[in-house]
Amino acid sequence: MTYCVGILVRDGLVMLADTRTNAGLDNIATYRKLHLYQTEGERVIAIATAGNLAVSQSVLNVMTEGLENPETGKIETIHTIPSMFKVAQFVGRAIREVYRIHGKSMEQQAASFDVTMLLAGQVKGGRLRLFMVYSAGNFIEATTDTPYLQIGEHKYGKPILDRAVTADTSISEALKLGLISMDSTLRSNLGVGMPIDIAVIRRDGLKFEVSHRIDDNDAYFAGLREHWSAALRDAHQSIPNPPYGET
Amino acid sequence: MTYCVGILVRDGLVMLADTRTNAGLDNIATYRKLHLYQTEGERVIAIATAGNLAVSQSVLNVMTEGLENPETGKIETIHTIPSMFKVAQFVGRAIREVYRIHGKSMEQQAASFDVTMLLAGQVKGGRLRLFMVYSAGNFIEATTDTPYLQIGEHKYGKPILDRAVTADTSISEALKLGLISMDSTLRSNLGVGMPIDIAVIRRDGLKFEVSHRIDDNDAYFAGLREHWSAALRDAHQSIPNPPYGET
Repeated sequence: MTYCVGILVRDGLVMLADTRTNAGLDNIATYRKLHLYQTEGERVIAIATAGNLAVSQSVLNVMTEGLENPETGKIETIHTIPSMFKVAQFVGRAIREVYRIHGKSMEQQAASFDVTMLLAGQVKGGRLRLFMVYSAGNFIEATTDTPYLQIGEHKYGKPILDRAVTADTSISEALKLGLISMDSTLRSNLGVGMPIDIAVIRRDGLKFEVSHRIDDNDAYFAGLREHWSAALRDAHQSIPNPPYGET
Repeated sequence: MTYCVGILVRDGLVMLADTRTNAGLDNIATYRKLHLYQTEGERVIAIATAGNLAVSQSVLNVMTEGLENPETGKIETIHTIPSMFKVAQFVGRAIREVYRIHGKSMEQQAASFDVTMLLAGQVKGGRLRLFMVYSAGNFIEATTDTPYLQIGEHKYGKPILDRAVTADTSISEALKLGLISMDSTLRSNLGVGMPIDIAVIRRDGLKFEVSHRIDDNDAYFAGLREHWSAALRDAHQSIPNPPYGET
């Protein structure tokens, strides 16, 4: 499994991804799932991947090696596409290209062509945007009504986001909430594991303000986990006892 | 969907179940999923059901109308079985009986034979026990290490239980935590809906100390939801800002 979340707020965007991959419980490994592309002052793009690792690695390779644009006939890469919307279309085309090559054979072997990607970033002159691209190559975009998107094992970490994230949340707060959401997922699903990769983009900054790997020795994340557990304990203990019957 | 949870603590047991059933998003209804059987001073049994409604209703009917015990040849009902372990076996046999009658035809219509049940209670002379019975009729039991069991849409409401429930939790606290877990699920999955049925059994009480339906007008539950939301907000706001980069 995997858990990745992107949160798009007024001042910027945060993206978090775990690093565990597994083929069964007895075969786990660490792979980076958060991929960063930056030409400072010109473009800043983060891609988080979930699903079949062979598929997502191939898609990333197609995007950096280049893919022909069917309309112009020109070879494009993720470093050259002129807008985030076109990058989302490009990611979709790259996924379909990998499906064209491997999809049928994978189906013959009963391996599902399963890939989902979060795509976030800004190209100079355009807006900071956050998309989720499906395995069919189609995609949706985060909006001010629903400013976050998740891929992979999304359920454990969703309640805190549903309650606390709005488009007006600060970048710091969004990162904190993303880490709390990640913590809930880490606790409940063994298929999601440390270390955690994080990236922060400030709107119009056109660079990664933060690009960091949080490992088991990270004092801040350890403190956040402890603080959050203690706060939850205090929170439910401060709720009055139920009035039903004599309990 | 459905969400039901049973929590077994030192002093007793709580069981909570929502009441929404749906056949697609455009066909929802309210059905009781928490079924209570009590002969005060002799036995107290609660059963919560998830899965196909036709299956779970049939299983409950088989259990109250009676089913032949293959070893003794006698007709047994849920009111007569002499121990909770035997009740769990009996629930399993009732599920297999319904599968024998409807299973093949359902499969022909591509309807999945899908049922899971939480079974909790105490028969005089025996222990208070909590089981989860699967659609194959086999079952597992809650222990002091893992004192709660969930069926249906279990992921949204699991983090708070993982953090806070132990075998030493008081009954009141267990009920509160069950309601918080239910609240998280209600917020995130439309297939889980009010009203909520709750039941409380005190160990060796051999009766339902609480058997109550919480509806939309319930002041305590509304207060708990507000209090919890506010406490979560305070909790994450009190965590220091992340030290990574200049966020």
